Amino acid sequence: MNLRKTCTWALSALVVLPLFASANIDIHEAPSRPKNMIIMIGDGMGPAYTSAYRYYQNNPDTEEIEQTVFDRLLVGMASTYPARQSGYVTDSAASATALATGVKSYNGAISVDVDKRPLTTIMQMAKARGMATGVAVTAQVNHATPAAFLAHNESRRNYDAIAQSYLSSGADVILGGGQKYFPEDLLKQFSAKDYQHISQLSQLDSLTQGKALGLFAEVQLPWVIDQQDSTQLSLLTQKALELLSQNPNGFVLLVEGSLIDWAGHNNDIATAMAEMHGFANAIEVVEQYVRANPDTLMVVTADHNTGGLSIGANGEYAWDTALLKGIQASPASIAELAIAIDDWQPLVSQKLGFELKAEELQSLGNARMQGQVALDTALKQLIDNRSFTGWTTSGHTGVDVQVFAAGPAADLFKGNQDNTDIADKMISLLPRAKQTLEVISKDNK
Amino acid sequence: MNLRKTCTWALSALVVLPLFASANIDIHEAPSRPKNMIIMIGDGMGPAYTSAYRYYQNNPDTEEIEQTVFDRLLVGMASTYPARQSGYVTDSAASATALATGVKSYNGAISVDVDKRPLTTIMQMAKARGMATGVAVTAQVNHATPAAFLAHNESRRNYDAIAQSYLSSGADVILGGGQKYFPEDLLKQFSAKDYQHISQLSQLDSLTQGKALGLFAEVQLPWVIDQQDSTQLSLLTQKALELLSQNPNGFVLLVEGSLIDWAGHNNDIATAMAEMHGFANAIEVVEQYVRANPDTLMVVTADHNTGGLSIGANGEYAWDTALLKGIQASPASIAELAIAIDDWQPLVSQKLGFELKAEELQSLGNARMQGQVALDTALKQLIDNRSFTGWTTSGHTGVDVQVFAAGPAADLFKGNQDNTDIADKMISLLPRAKQTLEVISKDNK
Ligand SMILES: [Zn+2]
Ligand SMILES: [Zn+2]
Repeated sequence: MNLRKTCTWALSALVVLPLFASANIDIHEAPSRPKNMIIMIGDGMGPAYTSAYRYYQNNPDTEEIEQTVFDRLLVGMASTYPARQSGYVTDSAASATALATGVKSYNGAISVDVDKRPLTTIMQMAKARGMATGVAVTAQVNHATPAAFLAHNESRRNYDAIAQSYLSSGADVILGGGQKYFPEDLLKQFSAKDYQHISQLSQLDSLTQGKALGLFAEVQLPWVIDQQDSTQLSLLTQKALELLSQNPNGFVLLVEGSLIDWAGHNNDIATAMAEMHGFANAIEVVEQYVRANPDTLMVVTADHNTGGLSIGANGEYAWDTALLKGIQASPASIAELAIAIDDWQPLVSQKLGFELKAEELQSLGNARMQGQVALDTALKQLIDNRSFTGWTTSGHTGVDVQVFAAGPAADLFKGNQDNTDIADKMISLLPRAKQTLEVISKDNK
Repeated sequence: MNLRKTCTWALSALVVLPLFASANIDIHEAPSRPKNMIIMIGDGMGPAYTSAYRYYQNNPDTEEIEQTVFDRLLVGMASTYPARQSGYVTDSAASATALATGVKSYNGAISVDVDKRPLTTIMQMAKARGMATGVAVTAQVNHATPAAFLAHNESRRNYDAIAQSYLSSGADVILGGGQKYFPEDLLKQFSAKDYQHISQLSQLDSLTQGKALGLFAEVQLPWVIDQQDSTQLSLLTQKALELLSQNPNGFVLLVEGSLIDWAGHNNDIATAMAEMHGFANAIEVVEQYVRANPDTLMVVTADHNTGGLSIGANGEYAWDTALLKGIQASPASIAELAIAIDDWQPLVSQKLGFELKAEELQSLGNARMQGQVALDTALKQLIDNRSFTGWTTSGHTGVDVQVFAAGPAADLFKGNQDNTDIADKMISLLPRAKQTLEVISKDNK
C-alpha cells in the first residue's frame, strides 16, 4: 500500500515471470489462478448501503432476517483514498483508476498517473494475453468507472474523447447507456471494427457471438424504481458472460451498479435501495456463473461511499423499511407528475404508498408552488423523516468499503486492503502472458 | 442467525459434550481452543470511526498512509440489530446482551431475554469452568456493556441494582469508573468477598494478585483529549491481564472503549478521535499479549455505530486531519474555560490550535452569550465545518460493524456474521466444562 509503484508491471512481472524462469516447472504447482475474472463495482456503495439493503429486503412475515448476497460473499474491506494531492476522499475516477491499474491518482484521472501519463490497465493486460474483455454498466458506458478500465484521459469530463478512445480499447463487449456520446460516424467506426451495435434491451437476444456495443439510453439507464423492474443490469451481465465466455483464453469483465451513486448524490433513499436491488440481482447472476464455472473469480466492491447515508437519524433508533418498500416511483418522477396535474395529492400519496398527514400535504403544496425541483427535494425530505434516513453530503465520504469475493483465490481478498491492492491481486492472477512486455508498452501509447 | 435459541447452552453443549461422549477421544483432535479469551468492544465504533482514525493517525511527513491496529486485525463484519420488537437499530444494552449471551433482546435489556428472563453469559460459563473473569472499561463499570457481561437486569437504567449484583458476579477484576454507584456499605461487602478496592490509577501498582475493584472516577473516566494522555485504558487492560492470567484455568476479559460512543452521541469529532486512540492503544496491549501468549484469542468489535459520522460532509471531498490533531481539549472543556474569563478569544484559539476568522469569532461570541452549552455546540459546529466532518444523529445507526481478531480460532470470525454469532463462537471455544449444567442453572437464578 505504501510507496506505490507507478507501473503495475513491477508486481505483475514478479508473479508472471517465474513461470518462464524454468522450462520444467510444473504448472500445477503454480498458485491457483482463475481462467476468468469478474470485478463488480457498486458505485458509492459504502457499508451503510449493504446493511440498509439487508433490512430493506427483510421479509416481515418471517421471524429471521434473511441474508443477502452481500452477507454470503463478504471477505474483507478496502480503503479508497486517492493520491495525496486529492486528500482522503476519492472520486469515482481516481478510485476506478486504482481498481483498474493498482495505482493511486488524482480525483478526475482516467487511468493516468499524477503526471497524467497513461497507466496500463488490467483490461489491456488481459487483451495482451488473448483474453476477452468487457463492461456492463447502468451509467453511460464512458462514465468514470468503465472509462478507467477501457481508456486513458486526464479528465473524466472528456466524455467524447473517452468514447472515441473505446475504438482502440479492444473491448469485446460494451453494454450500458450513453447514446449521446456515440454519434453516427463513431458508430460506423465501431461497425468497421466488427462491433454489432444495438440500442434496445430487446435486441440482446440477437447477440450470440462476436463483439458488441449496446447503448440502451441517451445517458444513464432508467432508474430501477421507475421501471419497477430490477433486471436491467442482470440482463446485460448475463449477455456479457455469454459472449465473453466464448473466448478459450478466458475473460475479464467489469460490471458496475453505477446509479447507486447517483441516487446517493441525490440523497434519495428509495431510489438508492432499488438500485441496490438491481445490482444485487446482477451479483447473483455472477454468483451462479461462478458456481457453474469454478474457474471463475468474482470480486465485488465499491469505489467509495456516497452521501453519508445512515440507517436511523435525528436521534431515532429506527429505520422504516416497510415505508421505503412501498414507494412506487422516484421522488423526481413523482414530482414531475405532480407538477403536471391539479389534483396532485391523491397521486402523490398513491405513488408514495402511504397516507399523507395534513401538515405534510401543506408542506408539499408549498414546495410544489416553487416548482418541480423544490417538490422533489420536499418529497425526499418527507421520505427521510418518515423512514429515519440520514445524509451528511451531496458528495462522497472516506469510509472504507467492503470487499466480496468467490471463486479461485477469493481468499486473497480477505481482511483489510487498499483499493490498489485489489487491482494488484487481480493482475497477479491473470494467466501467464502470451505476448511480451513490448506489445503492452505499445498498446499503452 | 435465524430462529435464535433462548439459551446459548444449546450450542455450547453441542460443542462441549462430544468431548465427554467417548473416553478414548484424542484431545488433540478437538478443534483448537484458546485458553484465554479477550473481547474488546469499541462502543459506537462503526466503520467510519476506524477509517477516520487511520487518516487522523496518518503521519503527514511520510509518503504512505500508515496501517492502524484495526487494519492489521480486520477479519469480518457483524450485523447488530436487536430483537424484532426494537426494530433495526440497537442500543448498547441489547447489543452487549447479544455479545455476552448469543441471544437477541430488546433495547435496554441487560442479559435478559425478551420475556425478561436471565440469560447465561459467557462470563458465567467461564466461571463454571473455573476460569477467571474481568472487565476493564472507561465508562462507569456498571454501564450497559460491562453490565450485560456481569449482571442481569430488565433495564440498563437500574445502575444501583446492577452495581449491587456485581457482588455475586464472581468477576475477579472490575476496573473503570462509577464511584457514585458503589457507596461505602457496598464497598464493604466487596471487601468481605476479598476484593481489593482502589480509586486512583497510581494505586494499580499495588495490585499484584487476587480480586480487584478499581473505580477511578465518580462516573466515567476523563476524556483522553482533556488528559492529553491516551494510556488510561491501556493501564487498566495491562493490569487486568496481569491479574487474570494467574488463573491456571485461563480467563475471559472484556475491555471496552466506552467513551467513543459518548463522544459520538455528542457529535464531537476531536474527542471521539482521541478516545479511538485510547482504545487503539489498549488493543495494541492485547495484541502484544496475544503474541506473547499464543493460547489467547482476542476479538475486537463494536456494539453499533453512533452519530452517523462521515469523513467529508456538505459536498466537500476532503477531511482535515491536521486541524483535528491540533485540538488540545474537548469543546466542552474549552467552552467551560471560555465562559469563565473575559479575554476568551486567545484562549479558545490556542486550545483549538488554529486561528479563528472574524466571522467565526463573532459566531462563537454570540453563542458564548447564550451560555456554556451553546458555546460547546458552536465550537463543535465550527470544528465540523473546518474539518468537513458530518453527523446525522445524536443516537445510533444500523450499519454493520467490523470484527477484528487474532489468536487461536481467529479465522472463525471472518466474513459476515451476526453479533449473536460472535458470542456463540466464543462460547463454543470455552474449554470443556468442569462443572455440570446444574451449577450453571443455579448461578443463573
Ligand atoms: Zn463512484
Ligand atoms: Zn453502545
